[in-house]
Amino acid sequence: MEHENDITAPLSRRERPAKTPLTREGIIDVAVTILENEGLGKVTMRRIAADLDTGAASLYVYVRNTEDLHARILDALLGRAAPLPRAGSWRERLVALLTGYGTVLFEHPEIARMTMTTHPVGPHYFRLVESILEALSEGGVPDPVAAWAVDVLLASVTASAAEHSGPSTTGEGSEALAVLAARIAITSGETYPHIVRLGDEMLSGTGMERFTWGLDVLINGILNTPRTPSASASS
Amino acid sequence: MEHENDITAPLSRRERPAKTPLTREGIIDVAVTILENEGLGKVTMRRIAADLDTGAASLYVYVRNTEDLHARILDALLGRAAPLPRAGSWRERLVALLTGYGTVLFEHPEIARMTMTTHPVGPHYFRLVESILEALSEGGVPDPVAAWAVDVLLASVTASAAEHSGPSTTGEGSEALAVLAARIAITSGETYPHIVRLGDEMLSGTGMERFTWGLDVLINGILNTPRTPSASASS
Repeated sequence: MEHENDITAPLSRRERPAKTPLTREGIIDVAVTILENEGLGKVTMRRIAADLDTGAASLYVYVRNTEDLHARILDALLGRAAPLPRAGSWRERLVALLTGYGTVLFEHPEIARMTMTTHPVGPHYFRLVESILEALSEGGVPDPVAAWAVDVLLASVTASAAEHSGPSTTGEGSEALAVLAARIAITSGETYPHIVRLGDEMLSGTGMERFTWGLDVLINGILNTPRTPSASASS
Repeated sequence: MEHENDITAPLSRRERPAKTPLTREGIIDVAVTILENEGLGKVTMRRIAADLDTGAASLYVYVRNTEDLHARILDALLGRAAPLPRAGSWRERLVALLTGYGTVLFEHPEIARMTMTTHPVGPHYFRLVESILEALSEGGVPDPVAAWAVDVLLASVTASAAEHSGPSTTGEGSEALAVLAARIAITSGETYPHIVRLGDEMLSGTGMERFTWGLDVLINGILNTPRTPSASASS
């Protein structure tokens, strides 16, 4: 400040403003900014370090490796999303929790794909899991079922988002199939009667309608599928 | 053969054995061989053409593009797998159909990941879909439900295989979570009571037990979730 009217004065290194101290939160913030502007492919330790005006080695005190970094990015995105629902029946809250999680992933399909194998880590994700378990418990779902159900529910939402990484989400899962099946039925003797009969139905519905129905299927299945703790593996 | 005792005789181009004529099946066979020996990353049109002693341009008569090629590879793998089950109740057949499909994908995790977005195309996949629809119909599942259910079932199996692309498949979905949650509960005042209470249960079971239970959840859910054809999207 003492040099502000003397632009020719040399600015020594010592007089530069001190660097913002590194924190894990600050590192993840930078990672999320790079993700949102340039995509997940650019989110590397080297790049984050450059943006923070430090060396990549300094980051490893706060983030173990790229996988750990990725695991924390989704947690940060969940923290920026709408707050977790508190009103409504246990089932309404459960659907809202999963839809909210899905909304974040549908907006970040690269993160959805990553989340298929690298599970998120952090307080926002833990609070989501805790709230799902709480809703299931309130719904009378037995503990052993709830313990496995939370993974089934979250994995299903993650997979839906990873699958529909393009902009179009209208029944695309079966579209190519139904169109091709119809063509086969017309041009050859070989037929697939069920596919041909249900072709239109297989194409029906919006992505959101299918997503919501899929959640209902899972929740109704969870309510109707006891778990035998010592179940033997099927052959 | 007339030159076999005269190794000095020049072998003219015209006397070489004729190239095997290109067929789509032959192209896919080569693709599958490369996949199984070197991984999906090496399965390119250029490489397949080289193995067939032709130019990549020649392949496009039989295979539209890389996506089309990938879509047909899974179909070929399904054709090499165990035949579709014909015995048992509709439900036993349905589980066997999905487990058989899952077995192919668990053995080829790269294909499982690809199948998340590029849906398979070909007679073996069509027969699988047809058989699933047939089993659901025999089980009394209404047509509109069956039409959406086939996608939910296949997508869930695909996602399971894509998720568990490593060799370990024991409850890894929630492992990191439960371990971390327990650590948090011990080292900080912040607790996640449901996660802590269910930590052991969340870690329990083999991958196969969880897979089988997940199929039961879906099938029971399908049997208990009517579809309203004009369902409005949830907010």
